Amino acid sequence: MELKMSAAEVENFLEEVYPQMAGRFAVEELSAMQARVRLKVTDADLRPGGTVSGPSMFTLADCAFYIAVLGMIGKQAMTVTTNCSIDFMRKPIPGDLIAEVVLHKLGRVLAVGDVLMRSEGVEAPVARASVTYSIPPVR
Amino acid sequence: MELKMSAAEVENFLEEVYPQMAGRFAVEELSAMQARVRLKVTDADLRPGGTVSGPSMFTLADCAFYIAVLGMIGKQAMTVTTNCSIDFMRKPIPGDLIAEVVLHKLGRVLAVGDVLMRSEGVEAPVARASVTYSIPPVR
Amino acid sequence: MELKMSAAEVENFLEEVYPQMAGRFAVEELSAMQARVRLKVTDADLRPGGTVSGPSMFTLADCAFYIAVLGMIGKQAMTVTTNCSIDFMRKPIPGDLIAEVVLHKLGRVLAVGDVLMRSEGVEAPVARASVTYSIPPVR
Amino acid sequence: MELKMSAAEVENFLEEVYPQMAGRFAVEELSAMQARVRLKVTDADLRPGGTVSGPSMFTLADCAFYIAVLGMIGKQAMTVTTNCSIDFMRKPIPGDLIAEVVLHKLGRVLAVGDVLMRSEGVEAPVARASVTYSIPPVR
Repeated sequence: MELKMSAAEVENFLEEVYPQMAGRFAVEELSAMQARVRLKVTDADLRPGGTVSGPSMFTLADCAFYIAVLGMIGKQAMTVTTNCSIDFMRKPIPGDLIAEVVLHKLGRVLAVGDVLMRSEGVEAPVARASVTYSIPPVR
Repeated sequence: MELKMSAAEVENFLEEVYPQMAGRFAVEELSAMQARVRLKVTDADLRPGGTVSGPSMFTLADCAFYIAVLGMIGKQAMTVTTNCSIDFMRKPIPGDLIAEVVLHKLGRVLAVGDVLMRSEGVEAPVARASVTYSIPPVR
Repeated sequence: MELKMSAAEVENFLEEVYPQMAGRFAVEELSAMQARVRLKVTDADLRPGGTVSGPSMFTLADCAFYIAVLGMIGKQAMTVTTNCSIDFMRKPIPGDLIAEVVLHKLGRVLAVGDVLMRSEGVEAPVARASVTYSIPPVR
Repeated sequence: MELKMSAAEVENFLEEVYPQMAGRFAVEELSAMQARVRLKVTDADLRPGGTVSGPSMFTLADCAFYIAVLGMIGKQAMTVTTNCSIDFMRKPIPGDLIAEVVLHKLGRVLAVGDVLMRSEGVEAPVARASVTYSIPPVR
């Protein structure tokens, strides 16, 4: 399977269809069935003590997964998250989070994969998520 | 098992420890092992088309669960979400979301329960989540 | 929405398509979007100490969900479990388990619902599961 | 972190505490925070058409995870599965299944990790699972 969009094309497409997300994410690497995505953490993502909030980690998992899928299926705004199961394992340190996505299945109807999230520069992951997307039929 | 905090006490406690959340949630009902919580949806929660965003639904599930646990264990800022598995089932309509929480287990170490979310006034739920919290030992 | 099969019809259909399951389950109640199913626990389901094994609880969750779906869509052997997220909360006591299923969504492509499992006669549940089924298109 | 038990020691321990499992699993590789485990598929694991059943895949995920944990914490029969979220992605072909386990966290109280399952010799995985174990305090 081959990529249908480059990292830069995916970033541009995201800013076009989700302008409210503009600048929050950087696509650091995009390859067949894989992606590495950075959440540029700002004060709005932080909880008291400087840790990144749960909803921000959820948003990263969901968005990083979407980026990996977009790379494979091309411009399609309309995929829909149907399930996300997320385990919070350690407190993030203040600073950006890096998500590694692996797609395990990219079917006609469903995409399934895993997302591992780390504080930049720290080996032990802060959270893991498995995500399922429903891919609407192209008409 | 009896409640240790009333709905009003939980709301006040939340605003004290999470001032950034102030005004986002209303505790509509709190009873033994159950809660009903309203997300007061604002423009920041909406996606194009007027639907409530996935991260806002995740935040509601997590916060409503926390409210149900607080009612049972009393003022303890330090419970930690360890897992949330959320299924997105239907597009919310524009407007507030109502979450119904049922705690199935409130152990010494873990709390486990379900959250069902609906657009106000609509019977068919928009999302369901199961949540696990870790309750740190009291010293 | 109305039932397409009665409890007895579902039981007969199951024994026909899954003869290896014959006699393991009883459909105690079947109504629109709901089912109550008994796992007739035998020695093969037990672990040392008399507790019902995790795989037996998983099998109950999966099968009870299938029964609730069958009641609504009629004879269709080919639905496929795509996700099951199960929380084990308490040790079952020796004896039958009762599963209560609620379907939250029965779409054209996906069915989603919750299963709560109890040891017979005990109020506190032993496990909860959320299940997603993919419903293949009818040709 | 170092291993506390070798692959052979774990296999012997399993047969001792779970005699009903004897011969079902082979520990093919065990290293720090990782394991590769084979389910020796027999007729009892198969569904019509020769595919491996869902409960057998669940059992493999749970048991392979337990093996990886045992390698790290040493002989402790009493860990308890608290959550398993499993995605079924493709039909297994008849034959053994191979599970690859990665532990992401091995805390004082909880262990969390992922399990990827494949039909032997086939690259595309048949299922993925995330598992959480509760580790009782040693007295």
